[in-house]
Amino acid sequence: MLVNCAVYENGKKVADIPKEEIHLHLGKPGRFVWVALRDPTPEELEEMRAEFDLHELAVEDALKGNQRPKIEEYGDCLFAVMHPVELEGDELIVGEIDVFVGKDYVLSVRRRTKQGFSSVRGRCEREPELLKAGPGYVLYALMDTVVDRYFPVIDRLEEELEKIEADIFEGEPERENIEALYALKRKLMTLRHSVLPLYEATSKLYGGRVPAVVAGTQEYFRDIYDHLFRINQSIDSLREMLTTAISVNLSLITVHENETMKQLAAYAALLAVPTMIAGIYGMNFEFMPELKWRFGYPLTLAVIFVADGYLLYRFKKAGWI
Amino acid sequence: MLVNCAVYENGKKVADIPKEEIHLHLGKPGRFVWVALRDPTPEELEEMRAEFDLHELAVEDALKGNQRPKIEEYGDCLFAVMHPVELEGDELIVGEIDVFVGKDYVLSVRRRTKQGFSSVRGRCEREPELLKAGPGYVLYALMDTVVDRYFPVIDRLEEELEKIEADIFEGEPERENIEALYALKRKLMTLRHSVLPLYEATSKLYGGRVPAVVAGTQEYFRDIYDHLFRINQSIDSLREMLTTAISVNLSLITVHENETMKQLAAYAALLAVPTMIAGIYGMNFEFMPELKWRFGYPLTLAVIFVADGYLLYRFKKAGWI
Amino acid sequence: MLVNCAVYENGKKVADIPKEEIHLHLGKPGRFVWVALRDPTPEELEEMRAEFDLHELAVEDALKGNQRPKIEEYGDCLFAVMHPVELEGDELIVGEIDVFVGKDYVLSVRRRTKQGFSSVRGRCEREPELLKAGPGYVLYALMDTVVDRYFPVIDRLEEELEKIEADIFEGEPERENIEALYALKRKLMTLRHSVLPLYEATSKLYGGRVPAVVAGTQEYFRDIYDHLFRINQSIDSLREMLTTAISVNLSLITVHENETMKQLAAYAALLAVPTMIAGIYGMNFEFMPELKWRFGYPLTLAVIFVADGYLLYRFKKAGWI
Amino acid sequence: MLVNCAVYENGKKVADIPKEEIHLHLGKPGRFVWVALRDPTPEELEEMRAEFDLHELAVEDALKGNQRPKIEEYGDCLFAVMHPVELEGDELIVGEIDVFVGKDYVLSVRRRTKQGFSSVRGRCEREPELLKAGPGYVLYALMDTVVDRYFPVIDRLEEELEKIEADIFEGEPERENIEALYALKRKLMTLRHSVLPLYEATSKLYGGRVPAVVAGTQEYFRDIYDHLFRINQSIDSLREMLTTAISVNLSLITVHENETMKQLAAYAALLAVPTMIAGIYGMNFEFMPELKWRFGYPLTLAVIFVADGYLLYRFKKAGWI
Amino acid sequence: MLVNCAVYENGKKVADIPKEEIHLHLGKPGRFVWVALRDPTPEELEEMRAEFDLHELAVEDALKGNQRPKIEEYGDCLFAVMHPVELEGDELIVGEIDVFVGKDYVLSVRRRTKQGFSSVRGRCEREPELLKAGPGYVLYALMDTVVDRYFPVIDRLEEELEKIEADIFEGEPERENIEALYALKRKLMTLRHSVLPLYEATSKLYGGRVPAVVAGTQEYFRDIYDHLFRINQSIDSLREMLTTAISVNLSLITVHENETMKQLAAYAALLAVPTMIAGIYGMNFEFMPELKWRFGYPLTLAVIFVADGYLLYRFKKAGWI
Repeated sequence: MLVNCAVYENGKKVADIPKEEIHLHLGKPGRFVWVALRDPTPEELEEMRAEFDLHELAVEDALKGNQRPKIEEYGDCLFAVMHPVELEGDELIVGEIDVFVGKDYVLSVRRRTKQGFSSVRGRCEREPELLKAGPGYVLYALMDTVVDRYFPVIDRLEEELEKIEADIFEGEPERENIEALYALKRKLMTLRHSVLPLYEATSKLYGGRVPAVVAGTQEYFRDIYDHLFRINQSIDSLREMLTTAISVNLSLITVHENETMKQLAAYAALLAVPTMIAGIYGMNFEFMPELKWRFGYPLTLAVIFVADGYLLYRFKKAGWI
Repeated sequence: MLVNCAVYENGKKVADIPKEEIHLHLGKPGRFVWVALRDPTPEELEEMRAEFDLHELAVEDALKGNQRPKIEEYGDCLFAVMHPVELEGDELIVGEIDVFVGKDYVLSVRRRTKQGFSSVRGRCEREPELLKAGPGYVLYALMDTVVDRYFPVIDRLEEELEKIEADIFEGEPERENIEALYALKRKLMTLRHSVLPLYEATSKLYGGRVPAVVAGTQEYFRDIYDHLFRINQSIDSLREMLTTAISVNLSLITVHENETMKQLAAYAALLAVPTMIAGIYGMNFEFMPELKWRFGYPLTLAVIFVADGYLLYRFKKAGWI
Repeated sequence: MLVNCAVYENGKKVADIPKEEIHLHLGKPGRFVWVALRDPTPEELEEMRAEFDLHELAVEDALKGNQRPKIEEYGDCLFAVMHPVELEGDELIVGEIDVFVGKDYVLSVRRRTKQGFSSVRGRCEREPELLKAGPGYVLYALMDTVVDRYFPVIDRLEEELEKIEADIFEGEPERENIEALYALKRKLMTLRHSVLPLYEATSKLYGGRVPAVVAGTQEYFRDIYDHLFRINQSIDSLREMLTTAISVNLSLITVHENETMKQLAAYAALLAVPTMIAGIYGMNFEFMPELKWRFGYPLTLAVIFVADGYLLYRFKKAGWI
Repeated sequence: MLVNCAVYENGKKVADIPKEEIHLHLGKPGRFVWVALRDPTPEELEEMRAEFDLHELAVEDALKGNQRPKIEEYGDCLFAVMHPVELEGDELIVGEIDVFVGKDYVLSVRRRTKQGFSSVRGRCEREPELLKAGPGYVLYALMDTVVDRYFPVIDRLEEELEKIEADIFEGEPERENIEALYALKRKLMTLRHSVLPLYEATSKLYGGRVPAVVAGTQEYFRDIYDHLFRINQSIDSLREMLTTAISVNLSLITVHENETMKQLAAYAALLAVPTMIAGIYGMNFEFMPELKWRFGYPLTLAVIFVADGYLLYRFKKAGWI
Repeated sequence: MLVNCAVYENGKKVADIPKEEIHLHLGKPGRFVWVALRDPTPEELEEMRAEFDLHELAVEDALKGNQRPKIEEYGDCLFAVMHPVELEGDELIVGEIDVFVGKDYVLSVRRRTKQGFSSVRGRCEREPELLKAGPGYVLYALMDTVVDRYFPVIDRLEEELEKIEADIFEGEPERENIEALYALKRKLMTLRHSVLPLYEATSKLYGGRVPAVVAGTQEYFRDIYDHLFRINQSIDSLREMLTTAISVNLSLITVHENETMKQLAAYAALLAVPTMIAGIYGMNFEFMPELKWRFGYPLTLAVIFVADGYLLYRFKKAGWI
């Protein structure tokens, strides 16, 4: 579905144009066309391939989707695949943005993502002096938006870990904690799959030799690289803390087991002591003077209560019960 | 066994030829011979070695099989070893494809694999404008097919992991889960052995200096590299999730142990309380007024039932039983 | 908030100046301006941006804070972000220092950190022959101070680990030990986040090609690199020891569980033996000669005491109780 | 001990010579001397050092033995240390082969290894067209033999792992399994110590700049490198599977513990139920009608049997017993 | 404290000189001064700094001590820091040796180490033909001595591990084993801190461009590098085995727990069976013919003994007791 198709000149929007007129605006210095598609049909993509003379393999990737995040050069054309990640309830939804950038065009293709990029267009149009740098700046603006949207996801995952930590140390139900740790691990891996390849690819867009279309905006891409570095580091930290949390949780479960064992043993003792005493006076010896005593029975009961009371006091003091 | 032997010119098939005539077609610009062998005898391979002047060490590798996946240059000849992986029931079957690529020939040798490559031949013949690029394109088409067949294997292993996860959290028999985790690990290692070396080798086929026979098809090999990267990343993810799953499973087993212990203790209490009470009234004191009561016995039984009933209620409420 | 603004010439302080006069002192050989801000407002930063012609992206980073430690070149300007770490009670507080260094100015921006850097200014002014090297030396002095303040933090974390180790092996409450191990891990990760990126960035300030402003002070930056290497190595060691400590703690908890089990079993035996003996003499056989004996009862009690006494002795000797 | 000393010319053996005549044959184009020593005395080595003008440090290494596998250049002389590994019963025996290779000599020194290298000599002499390449080919032949002998060791270790796996999952005695896992780990580390350094060193013998003596035989050394890569990968796989096996084994032991606990609890219940029932009828109430019944006793016994029988059935069904 | 101060010419010692005369001997071709200090005062070091014109930062490092092992160039001067490790009882003592090497001087500073280096001086003086190479050879001799002293430490740690292994598998007290494993880990980390940085630094002293003072002795430094490689590999092996040993130990502790549980259960059964039987005959039914039997009591006792005897036999056979 065509979302947008406009011509820009010297950083300013000139006009929205029908897609059939794209070729009229190509090859003019200082001018470029910016086309945005959403879940395009093969025909729409083929049309664009013809208009911009895109490389067949890149178009095929954009058509099939499910590529890994990457940035590739096909001649003068830069082909970028990014995976925006959105939180939907408790789930991470991974979308896909494919961007083709040439010296006089930008083509973005969006899939499986609810958040649009009209804000990017707005931002670019409000900064004509930067947009003047051309399609490379548009790529930057798109990447910057995708990357900035990783931060709240990271924050959310960190909050989840903190919640699980609190639950673990406060003795919340163990099964739930374990499931939560595992679910968090799954989400972390998903996020990492989206971030890590992009992080590696971005390093090719600044320093040393860079593709021509981003030549004037290197420092901006270094900024994105920096953000990705930070996100990546947070992911690695989360992974390490998670592994530690799983170990620590196992230790706590074992400690808990030990505590349960002691608690059960304490209650068992409270039953076993009376049973033993009663057993003694259940013997059938003819000469057991206590049995004849007037207060033998209540005394024995008293002994039993005192013994159990004392045990109860000791167990409580030792923290077993 | 000779599967196929044909001559191609400018991307189109010219003729099937007997293998004795191969040398007649070598050294002609734009023309190349494509030979496919399956489980060849040493004599067949020796014949080919002589026809194409292959390097002795490469032929020896192809003869012995059981090489690791690799891509090597012997002078102008590129020698590629790939390990296709097939699912057969619950097992992974690792085959071997050896490909010799020169500027005017392609020789493929297939071992221990049921799936043939006639589809590759068909695909190449349907794309004469690409096949025109020569033997390098044939190598690409073969590799692409092998690599694409890794994806369903990965998908299957991911499904297996998800099934095991579900079983673990739903409390399926623990021994079975552990065995399944271990078996999955084994399969992952097998797949990784096939993918990782090929992934590393493929990086030599694009970017910077590449062997002459693949010079015109670099972007296609980058595409394969990309796929291998993605497969590799999935394998690494699976390994990491598997390790986590094993830890988490141990935690759950320990939690289960704790639960079992509580359950057993609850039942023990239900037996120990009546035993204790009965013990008391089994004492032989002469002065135990209750023993003389008309309703001493039924009352005691009632007390026992009430006590056990109350415990049962408490245990059920605490989730011990 | 402006903390300080002074002009230096040939390593000596010339005068404190109002910030409006900064531009009068720029571009004079041997002279540089040193400005220190604390929690600046956007307006203050914008003013500085204009005075020193700083790059927009760097200023934006300094404004937003929360950057990762890094050292970046924007044309002639070096932009350094450092994270000083302070101990506050049991917590690690991570601050931020942003430093802009040009050939005739140094601008430092401090956030979320209580410790100031007036000592750095004092030290620099006491070493005019070194300060003569210019803004690069000021950067060195600031970094050196930040890095030196990591050492006491490391020492403190090492002490914490030693305390936990002692607690673990002396059998202190297990839950507390586990929580302490986890909390220490958290702190280690925090410190590592501050140190590791700076360590990597510092390697760009000595050896081979370095930014112009630090050209004459390379050996000083190698010294800082060395310190960061050492800190980093200590962090890695702590991480490894911590992981080992967690494993070892789990082993000890399991050993403890075993010991508890034995202890409980011993007490159970001390109750079960009398119960069994009493049970025997509670049988109602008509012909049980012992029951008729004058000393049957005291003898039985004696047997019970002797049996329990012997068991007690054995259990104590075996260390079960 | 001198094992062999012979002169070769153009790939063919010319004569066995006494070691005193070695110098007569040096420096003749196309001719080289091949000397094999076994557990040499310092004097023998000193003699060789003088004959071939070997570097003092290399000779010292050969004298002391216990070097790590390595390949070093001392001027024109290549000095290779390899560690052949042999299976002796259940033990891995690590030997040492030191080889000095110059442009007109090969000197091999063998220590602590039972398997000789006469087969290497035989193989070389049967391939004069290859041996013509000179001492470099002899080095290849020696290395190839050492490396090929790693394969059966790897196979054996893989079989051991498979046996342990089977034992683990079939519930063989747990202590034995743990000891076997640990012993296998030890062997793996031993093998790795022999293979890994050689693998790293071999990469210097092909591709790019290589020592002069192996210049014509690069492709052969790449072949050895390949084999070492494969062995190394197998070792890494074994290590990873072993770690997994240890984890999995711990999980199984814990599961087993749980099973044992249930089994014991089941038997305890079979004893506790009769005890409880008997306790009830052991009470001394005057009015317990059942006690007067003619069939009270057998009925009670019957109840006990039925209760235990039912429990037994339930436990068996639940797999506890 | 000044330990030694001597002049060497062409590899031979010329004279011991007072430190005030050092400058008289500098700058003479073929001649160099060798000074050894031990725990020097700041004044002594300052004196040396002035004599040899050492770099301020290096001297500061030597003064403060506690540097990490490293090798740095300050102009023509090479500054090496090494950490000799000594065994003192059960402890590892880490010392420090700082060496300044110029083209006509060697200055060594020793701290916190009991073993001196007079043997190095003796060895150098016995090898004038090597010492002729100048201060670089002295540095080699010092490093060689430090590095050689790591070997017995490694051997000792390996012996410790073997002892712990034996204790683990022979069932020695578990707490002691765990503490020993942890203590060994601590020592390993200490040793690694001394070895690893030196290993990395040494690689700069051979191959490619090397500092001028060691130019003629590269092969000797490669030898040291080799030794450090071997030590490092042993440390890594020990770390890996240690981690495995900790895992394996936990498994064994859990197995032991299981065994203890069975043992306790067996003893419990031996008590519970008589209790149950006695309970039955403690019932008060009027019609229990056995109670009237002449041999009811002894028969019951016999049944109890036989039952317990049989259980004992079964438990012993199953290895529970």
